[in-house]
Amino acid sequence: MSQHVLIIGAVALGPKAACRFKRLEPGSTVTMIDQNSCFSYGGCGIPYYVSGDVSDVKELCNTSFHMTRDEKFFKEVKGVDMQPRTRALSIDREKKQVLVERLDSGEQETLSYDKLVIATGSSPRRLPLPGAELEGVHVVADLNDAEKIRAAVTRGEVSKAVIVGAGFIGLEMAEALTDMWGVETTVVEITDQILPGLVSPTIARMARRHMEEQGVEFQLGQTVQRIEPAEGGERVAKVVTSAGELEADLVILAAGVVPSDKLARDCGLACSERGGILVDEQMRTSDPDIFAGGDCVVVKHLVSGQPFFLPLGSMSNRQGRIIGDNLAGRGKTFPGAVGSFVVKLFETSVAGTGMSLAAARRAGLDAVSVFQIQLDRAHFYPTKELMTLELVVEKGTRRVLGIQGFAGSGDAMVGRVNAVAALLPRKPTVDDLSTMELAYSPPFASAMDVLNSLGNVADNVLEGRNVGILPDEFAECWESDQGECYFLDCREAADAGQYVERLEKWHNIPQGKLAERIAELPRDKRIVLVCNTGARSYEAQITLMDQGFADVLNLQGGMAGLKKWGLEL
Amino acid sequence: MSQHVLIIGAVALGPKAACRFKRLEPGSTVTMIDQNSCFSYGGCGIPYYVSGDVSDVKELCNTSFHMTRDEKFFKEVKGVDMQPRTRALSIDREKKQVLVERLDSGEQETLSYDKLVIATGSSPRRLPLPGAELEGVHVVADLNDAEKIRAAVTRGEVSKAVIVGAGFIGLEMAEALTDMWGVETTVVEITDQILPGLVSPTIARMARRHMEEQGVEFQLGQTVQRIEPAEGGERVAKVVTSAGELEADLVILAAGVVPSDKLARDCGLACSERGGILVDEQMRTSDPDIFAGGDCVVVKHLVSGQPFFLPLGSMSNRQGRIIGDNLAGRGKTFPGAVGSFVVKLFETSVAGTGMSLAAARRAGLDAVSVFQIQLDRAHFYPTKELMTLELVVEKGTRRVLGIQGFAGSGDAMVGRVNAVAALLPRKPTVDDLSTMELAYSPPFASAMDVLNSLGNVADNVLEGRNVGILPDEFAECWESDQGECYFLDCREAADAGQYVERLEKWHNIPQGKLAERIAELPRDKRIVLVCNTGARSYEAQITLMDQGFADVLNLQGGMAGLKKWGLEL
Repeated sequence: MSQHVLIIGAVALGPKAACRFKRLEPGSTVTMIDQNSCFSYGGCGIPYYVSGDVSDVKELCNTSFHMTRDEKFFKEVKGVDMQPRTRALSIDREKKQVLVERLDSGEQETLSYDKLVIATGSSPRRLPLPGAELEGVHVVADLNDAEKIRAAVTRGEVSKAVIVGAGFIGLEMAEALTDMWGVETTVVEITDQILPGLVSPTIARMARRHMEEQGVEFQLGQTVQRIEPAEGGERVAKVVTSAGELEADLVILAAGVVPSDKLARDCGLACSERGGILVDEQMRTSDPDIFAGGDCVVVKHLVSGQPFFLPLGSMSNRQGRIIGDNLAGRGKTFPGAVGSFVVKLFETSVAGTGMSLAAARRAGLDAVSVFQIQLDRAHFYPTKELMTLELVVEKGTRRVLGIQGFAGSGDAMVGRVNAVAALLPRKPTVDDLSTMELAYSPPFASAMDVLNSLGNVADNVLEGRNVGILPDEFAECWESDQGECYFLDCREAADAGQYVERLEKWHNIPQGKLAERIAELPRDKRIVLVCNTGARSYEAQITLMDQGFADVLNLQGGMAGLKKWGLEL
Repeated sequence: MSQHVLIIGAVALGPKAACRFKRLEPGSTVTMIDQNSCFSYGGCGIPYYVSGDVSDVKELCNTSFHMTRDEKFFKEVKGVDMQPRTRALSIDREKKQVLVERLDSGEQETLSYDKLVIATGSSPRRLPLPGAELEGVHVVADLNDAEKIRAAVTRGEVSKAVIVGAGFIGLEMAEALTDMWGVETTVVEITDQILPGLVSPTIARMARRHMEEQGVEFQLGQTVQRIEPAEGGERVAKVVTSAGELEADLVILAAGVVPSDKLARDCGLACSERGGILVDEQMRTSDPDIFAGGDCVVVKHLVSGQPFFLPLGSMSNRQGRIIGDNLAGRGKTFPGAVGSFVVKLFETSVAGTGMSLAAARRAGLDAVSVFQIQLDRAHFYPTKELMTLELVVEKGTRRVLGIQGFAGSGDAMVGRVNAVAALLPRKPTVDDLSTMELAYSPPFASAMDVLNSLGNVADNVLEGRNVGILPDEFAECWESDQGECYFLDCREAADAGQYVERLEKWHNIPQGKLAERIAELPRDKRIVLVCNTGARSYEAQITLMDQGFADVLNLQGGMAGLKKWGLEL
């Protein structure tokens, strides 16, 4: 039975749903409309176009075989009728019609459908900022914005930039401007960390410090009050924040995006109070003839069970295929999302999946997080790097709620995050991580992989055997200490010596000598144990607890973590 | 309650079990014996020591903090009584005693235990080869062998080497000798592919061709008949195989390993007929006071359900911890193995988990495999490489049985294999792969990740929508064709032109023009479709099948796969 499908929006989800459906039902027809002249592009590539990594904006619109995805391509190769510069004004669900405006002619027209797909995406959150309309102030919504920003930097007009928002786009744009164009860039962020909501303050701080080393400046916990032009002009000249004034030739507003759900709301489809069209597991809206997916919907978070907004091109692609399947009646399900992400920041990357500790606690879960810093390969293999992972687990159930990481070697760390992401919908426990069978040989992993170790550390923490503190807690302890703590470095003298010499409060007993020298330790103080990465201090903790010391803490991640975190000792 | 644990074997599992147990029960005692003077080393690092990547053999015996794991280390740091050069002769389960021989003095002694751990590992399969005892003929069993081989190449005594066996060790040693020392190396393998049992002939051939380009020679499907010395000498001079004679200054026998289960067998513990101690999920043997793990046991294969021998250091480490836990009564389980592996071969790597197609069919499963060749990152991102993945699935149930891959970018491919490995014990289907949520941003993945695509291809193949052939099937078809096939390149003329010019049998209609030019195609022939990687030929196949063409095949992996496979057109 042939049917006619209409798709509103042609960036990522729309084309995927259209093409998949046409492959399943070559005899049916598909019309796809988009308000822009530019469509079916890789919007996630915009920062790499601005940086120059992607030389021509056309590459973002091409297939991997260098064919441009224009109207002709959709017609000839995909059998899809693509109509750009056409805006959907309203949906009449009774008549199964969409009223559209042809933007070039201004004419209105109704388009009929048997099945409708809403793929209207998201739009940048507009901040009610005085001066946001000035020349040189941009959002990053589409390729037009991208071309304007790239043109400005290419012409050499930009020596100072301010970016508002330290999420993915904000940080990627900061890297693009700093790394490739030498623009002095300041990121202003309202919360007190980068990547808020996604990673812990500890990982955020490690990543921010790397970006600062590469020349990006940050104003955290600050708000933008207004943007100002040069006297009498129309172009931006400075940004006034709660911390003072910043000169700027370019301002990028990257304070997140909101789902474009107005069309759906206006025709009475169920939407989330906080924005986003509600869909079932088949990506169907509250009207069984209307599907929706991509940045304009919310899906179920498979860890928290709550509605979840995850505007990523990868979500759109996978959901688009499911919609294509279900337009053809295949009854396929998209169970929800676990929130996997990765962002490259100069020579490092931050990745994660599931919930951060703060998110888990906000959701009312009794959660704790543990750290592991370990080499990504066999320690004797010549090339290797330290990888930092934080695992969020629920006490009692021992359930894994999420994992986040910071590392130099992107692919290796992302591979670990992906392994957890794959299992996360099946509600794994800490024990599943301890026995997870990752591919092993020395050039790729340790015999006890960092993920296995992370599971083991979590096991020890949950059992009360490993009582750890994180770098930020250590720093506070170190700085506020009035003699109530005894800081014990349990590495060999060769490693600990320089600290003992410089720091009055620093003591050293190698872990192997601890049992015989235990009388040297005060029994009336909190003992804070330190080693390279936290493995030997954990062994020392066991010795001390076995000897009746009650108040013993060990620094998770050890000196390696402390160094990345940035405590000057 | 304090107890005494005796551990036989101190390479990987033994030390792990010992140290874990001591951390859980500091008040108990552990004695660990090993027949060698060298113990607790990273045996998997031997090829990297032979190559020179690892400069000093001591690095294989050190912790990651450069402490040597000698008797003193075990005593002071781990609280474990380590006794080297002590061979276990027999186990008296009734008396809970082990009779040992002190190899330096020749004296015998009995050691008592409350709990015993057998960690006797594996030993190289000895081939009944005339000449195997000659000087210059080695197995790779321990650090002694490693030092002898390295000494010979370092002294410049080796210009030609023969390696018997194309498994992990054989191939890693071939790389070590060729890459770093310029030794002319030939690998002789009894089966007709490298990595037999682990990957398909297709992936094996891609990897072998890369190794050949790096200078390694292969004799596949050949057996070694004898090894011969120079006239009147004791040193190896040549190897006689079923294919002729090979000169050799060095011969490495790497025909796999067999579990060292004699001690266990002799005292009546249950063992597998094919070798290996049988253990339950808690790593307990048929005697509840005796545990075993590592290379000397078989565990359950979590996909096939069959007993499985997987001698890898990573298995030993994870199992060792479980044994440590269970010695202390924690009741932890090691559910079994999925068979994850990775091997680096020069600038490429081969990895996999679960079952290969051949293994699945041998196990009686109705299995099929599908290929996907795709860029590992967004196609517009400047650095990227093609990744080849093969997915093995069961028809009917749509269950994923295994995945194997070949790629240049090791970590990225291994990360995908690991994601499947993590999920494999939970019996995922093809649909779980299609919706798997891998972390996405352009420097790390495509918006539709290669794993998602692979799941999608499998879905299409299982539904009969994508009727594909692999490179080897295409090659056979191409070479044997007497005009019954119509080879249609459905790329643009710019890509297809050079083949059309040279090859009479090669035709070209771009996929976008197929519908309008369909009359050009013969209806009485098998149509074989080709494009770059198999995506467009799949679309063309749909068009043709929709137009009533019944016998249409498309080349999975396209010309990219064919090129890696090595068909000269």
